[in-house]
Amino acid sequence: MNDARRAQRGDLAPEAVIENVRPSVDAGRFAAKRIVGEPIEVTADGFAHGHEKTLCTLRYRGPGERDWAELDMEFLGNDRWRGSFTPGSPGLWQFQLTCRVDYLESWREGFARRIDPADVRLAARIGAQLVAQSLARASGADRERLAALGRTLETEQDAAKLRAASQDATAFALARKHAPRDAQCETVAFPVAVERARARFSSWYELFPRSASGEPGRHGTFEDVEERLDEIAAMGFHIVYLPPIHPIGRAKRKGRNNVPVASDGDVGSPWAIGAEEGGHTAIHPQLGTIADFRHLVRGAKLRGMEIAMDIAFQVAPDHPWVAEHPEWFRRRPDGSVQYAENPPKKYEDIYPIDFETADWRALWQALHDVVAFWAREGVEAFRVDNPHTKPFAFWEWLIAEIRREHPNAIFLSEAFTRPRVMHRLAKLGFSQSYTYFTWRVTKPELTEYFTQLSQDDSREYFRPNCWPNTPDILPYHLQDASPAMFRLRLTLAATLASAYGIYGPAYELCENRPRDPGTSEEYLDSEKYEVKHWDRGDPASLAPLVTRLNAIRNAHPALQSDASLAFHDTDSDHILCYSKRSGSDRILACVNLDPHNTQSAWVDLDLAALGLPEDASFTVHDELSGASYPWRGRRNFVMLDPGRAPAHVFSVIA
Amino acid sequence: MNDARRAQRGDLAPEAVIENVRPSVDAGRFAAKRIVGEPIEVTADGFAHGHEKTLCTLRYRGPGERDWAELDMEFLGNDRWRGSFTPGSPGLWQFQLTCRVDYLESWREGFARRIDPADVRLAARIGAQLVAQSLARASGADRERLAALGRTLETEQDAAKLRAASQDATAFALARKHAPRDAQCETVAFPVAVERARARFSSWYELFPRSASGEPGRHGTFEDVEERLDEIAAMGFHIVYLPPIHPIGRAKRKGRNNVPVASDGDVGSPWAIGAEEGGHTAIHPQLGTIADFRHLVRGAKLRGMEIAMDIAFQVAPDHPWVAEHPEWFRRRPDGSVQYAENPPKKYEDIYPIDFETADWRALWQALHDVVAFWAREGVEAFRVDNPHTKPFAFWEWLIAEIRREHPNAIFLSEAFTRPRVMHRLAKLGFSQSYTYFTWRVTKPELTEYFTQLSQDDSREYFRPNCWPNTPDILPYHLQDASPAMFRLRLTLAATLASAYGIYGPAYELCENRPRDPGTSEEYLDSEKYEVKHWDRGDPASLAPLVTRLNAIRNAHPALQSDASLAFHDTDSDHILCYSKRSGSDRILACVNLDPHNTQSAWVDLDLAALGLPEDASFTVHDELSGASYPWRGRRNFVMLDPGRAPAHVFSVIA
Repeated sequence: MNDARRAQRGDLAPEAVIENVRPSVDAGRFAAKRIVGEPIEVTADGFAHGHEKTLCTLRYRGPGERDWAELDMEFLGNDRWRGSFTPGSPGLWQFQLTCRVDYLESWREGFARRIDPADVRLAARIGAQLVAQSLARASGADRERLAALGRTLETEQDAAKLRAASQDATAFALARKHAPRDAQCETVAFPVAVERARARFSSWYELFPRSASGEPGRHGTFEDVEERLDEIAAMGFHIVYLPPIHPIGRAKRKGRNNVPVASDGDVGSPWAIGAEEGGHTAIHPQLGTIADFRHLVRGAKLRGMEIAMDIAFQVAPDHPWVAEHPEWFRRRPDGSVQYAENPPKKYEDIYPIDFETADWRALWQALHDVVAFWAREGVEAFRVDNPHTKPFAFWEWLIAEIRREHPNAIFLSEAFTRPRVMHRLAKLGFSQSYTYFTWRVTKPELTEYFTQLSQDDSREYFRPNCWPNTPDILPYHLQDASPAMFRLRLTLAATLASAYGIYGPAYELCENRPRDPGTSEEYLDSEKYEVKHWDRGDPASLAPLVTRLNAIRNAHPALQSDASLAFHDTDSDHILCYSKRSGSDRILACVNLDPHNTQSAWVDLDLAALGLPEDASFTVHDELSGASYPWRGRRNFVMLDPGRAPAHVFSVIA
Repeated sequence: MNDARRAQRGDLAPEAVIENVRPSVDAGRFAAKRIVGEPIEVTADGFAHGHEKTLCTLRYRGPGERDWAELDMEFLGNDRWRGSFTPGSPGLWQFQLTCRVDYLESWREGFARRIDPADVRLAARIGAQLVAQSLARASGADRERLAALGRTLETEQDAAKLRAASQDATAFALARKHAPRDAQCETVAFPVAVERARARFSSWYELFPRSASGEPGRHGTFEDVEERLDEIAAMGFHIVYLPPIHPIGRAKRKGRNNVPVASDGDVGSPWAIGAEEGGHTAIHPQLGTIADFRHLVRGAKLRGMEIAMDIAFQVAPDHPWVAEHPEWFRRRPDGSVQYAENPPKKYEDIYPIDFETADWRALWQALHDVVAFWAREGVEAFRVDNPHTKPFAFWEWLIAEIRREHPNAIFLSEAFTRPRVMHRLAKLGFSQSYTYFTWRVTKPELTEYFTQLSQDDSREYFRPNCWPNTPDILPYHLQDASPAMFRLRLTLAATLASAYGIYGPAYELCENRPRDPGTSEEYLDSEKYEVKHWDRGDPASLAPLVTRLNAIRNAHPALQSDASLAFHDTDSDHILCYSKRSGSDRILACVNLDPHNTQSAWVDLDLAALGLPEDASFTVHDELSGASYPWRGRRNFVMLDPGRAPAHVFSVIA
């Protein structure tokens, strides 16, 4: 197509098309998730009608950039293309693909097959026309080189010399560089949410600051928490997550074990946020001051860790907003403020916020300002309480707004709810999500659920964060359970998921007493309603196992992402076997799901998933016990005594 | 949310969202394909945050309609919804989904769980507010009914009576009908290309009219074709497809067996379209007149069949357009018109059309007018020659334009090319597509390919039409092959695909002589370049088998679509077993892929795919041989002698 014709093509659609772009979430409506410093591989189908060759380019730009960087994609055959770029900073990146007919290469390909000299000479003139189009867009040395090429193709009579000219790859690369591109097709811009590595690989430790004091009976403070940081860092955690640290409401305060009326001295639930001392940007006076908090945040950073805040957008009746912004709350027909309820249950110590209030813009801004306040205090990780009870549009807006100023902000969605709702929250921006791991116990349950999490399309946006317990959930299988069961669930969480957490010290001390055995997942004497004193010096503490597991996680890149997770067959319902891989780093876990009895199994390894040949000989080194075994081929034997260890966590040395 | 607040919500996004809409092709960019009179089932995820109940509606409209019909969707649990509508006419239909929070049902659900009478009374007032919103939008009897309900909820003091009022399903259905809907979310409109049933279920018979004369040496005419119609109808075909019927170019005409220079009396290829007698809207004088053609079209319709035209957008050098519209063709640098070529091969009897010419609007319109011309002559099926060498945008535009005036038009894409290109053509509107069946021979090849065709997402838009041969393709496995091989390939095509065709009488007469054995798929003495005389009375003709297979197809709805295709294991590499189902109609085919030897196998039936219980006893009735056998459970035995029959084509009687 020559220039004059191109000028007249008007709204004639480009010949080339692009389909099947990856990564994409809902055709580009939402961002795929990636990590700073790791190449983003983009693939697509790009093609035109007929036999013309096409050329695809990948454009990308970082947060706030207007200009695109551009590179040629690699042709994989069968109309498939691949390209990649490595985001160097966190934030919202974008990529876009273009595809166009490569008239120059199409001409060269046909030209090489021509035999008749007269035909060769005539076809060379067509090549000259194509080169002239590039020449018109080139300058300087490029222009001279293209002019020379064009002259040869235009005037040379010797077919052999013409053929030689057509094979000048350098000159034709130049011609392609300057070729007209007005008839190319372009995709929409696909967003990629690029986060720091902690968004994918993180070990969380939740603790109540008020129970951090070493002395029974004394209310803990930030200073007490700071004194515990060395110990938590030694256990290998990355993120210390604190339940809400704000003033706790006094009106309708709940007592110990959630009884409706508090007794004198009852401290209330930290999630009943707000009192006369202030609301979501204030600090509970008994914990310390903002200066103490800053000191704690710095203290965590000094130890290579960070503090995560709890974002719970609800208020106690005496939260200052209730008086200052009555329009942010629903009213009952009798004029009273609507409390939280799940009929016939009433939660009169909590007022939900009305996100659809007529004054929603001011409300949303105020909520944004809460998060921004703590982000400015150096907090970069936020665990969001019950995000599924607030509008989707709010979270999508809030997270984008906060990330614009604070691109390192990580948001963990505590939404234990229906799967579609959990996925939607992940799509719209949450970095990580709580999962159903908490209730997945059997071999088929674990296999099915983690295969889905790691292999479904949702892995582009849904990053699981697995918790064996939380302050709200002492699952039935942990109620009155043995330390072996606690070891087992801990080991599963730490090796199945690159992000996991425990609520401690309850977990490592195997706190197993339910308030209502078998009918509720509440802890007896729950820390949610009282100050606890934990005997962390208990020799039965699982802290050594926690420490060992986190050390393995920190040393092995295989455990730092989830996409490579593969399950291997075993001939026992009790032995679960799975592996993860990162390059030549391979972890193979064989877990005994029976906490009561020794179990053994023949394992049938999927050697391809491990990147090993069928008849491979290799060593498996148990990172928990320190023992090594020579293994060979697919079939190998394991035996596990739950009294000694829940699992082999092998590194595979090929 | 009350009205005053809603009025102020401004651009506050709706709470509810919709995801995962089916059927959709590329997120609604292209139309899914369906058939007139058959319900279109639409599914989606529709949900909001929190625990509010939602309500999804399905809207749809037919071609040219401005208003949507609307119906409530059925809730399937787990945030899934289903609805369906039945298109009553062919054309481009659209559907759209809405989802909104159902405040009324959410209120009723919570209300039913309230116990405390004071709480019940207060909550009833909230219900009254919701009913008032509906009341404001209702009139007549609805208004009166809602007013009464509102009064009860507002003023009644007796909790039992309030509970009874809240359980009045009829009144609340009215309230829901009139509830405000300004905060609902809506999807884009998803297109569905609705075609007549022949677009999915059709048996094609291709013949060259010029060979239709009964007398050796005489050029056939439309009248001769008409005389053959009874016989073709008796064989059970639906569509008689004629290669181009236009004047054949004389300039550079090719001779028999495609030799470069024609001899006197050589008739040329019908695909070299155009001569002094006219172009794409003219009729080759030796075939007859337009009146004869009209008579033929009517004759086919009288017999329940139809004539398909060949649309080949290319011209012979003496096509009138070459002189009238020189700008529609590319020029070589010496000023000559660019002929078709695949260097070093030249096809100087064919000029491609330049679809990207500066005059493309006039050109495209002229090409459209060609199709429209024949559509006005009553032709409703078009087999398009090499659509993959013309721009995608052209076909998308052309097919939509033609269908607007002629919604019954069926387009068959003859694109034997790369898979992505074939799929793109199907997406943009072709009703059916030629396939790789022509070259899929072994059990794994057939199983993989047909599983993909019938089960992949592409089944929403790609409808296979399977041909064992074409005038261009005598595949290697049919070259010098026995009648048993011809019977085998015919049986596979007719039972694997709801649309299939043969090029006859070459096929039923087992024409097996290649021009260049093993190196080309061209027939010896190809009908493309000469008039043939076929001995249709040959007692070895496969016409009886063709007749039987088409009769089975016409009698069994199971064979009239592809989505239910399922393969069943057998313990022989030679025995292929598959089934199709439509309600209680079940066809089970067991095919011997070895045309030389008797083969037997144990078949391991997937009884679930057949809709049968695991221990079912049933009768299989061979529709080819007439024999019946009692079968039981999964494992059953078959033995097939290729000298007698290529297959059992069982109907399964449970």
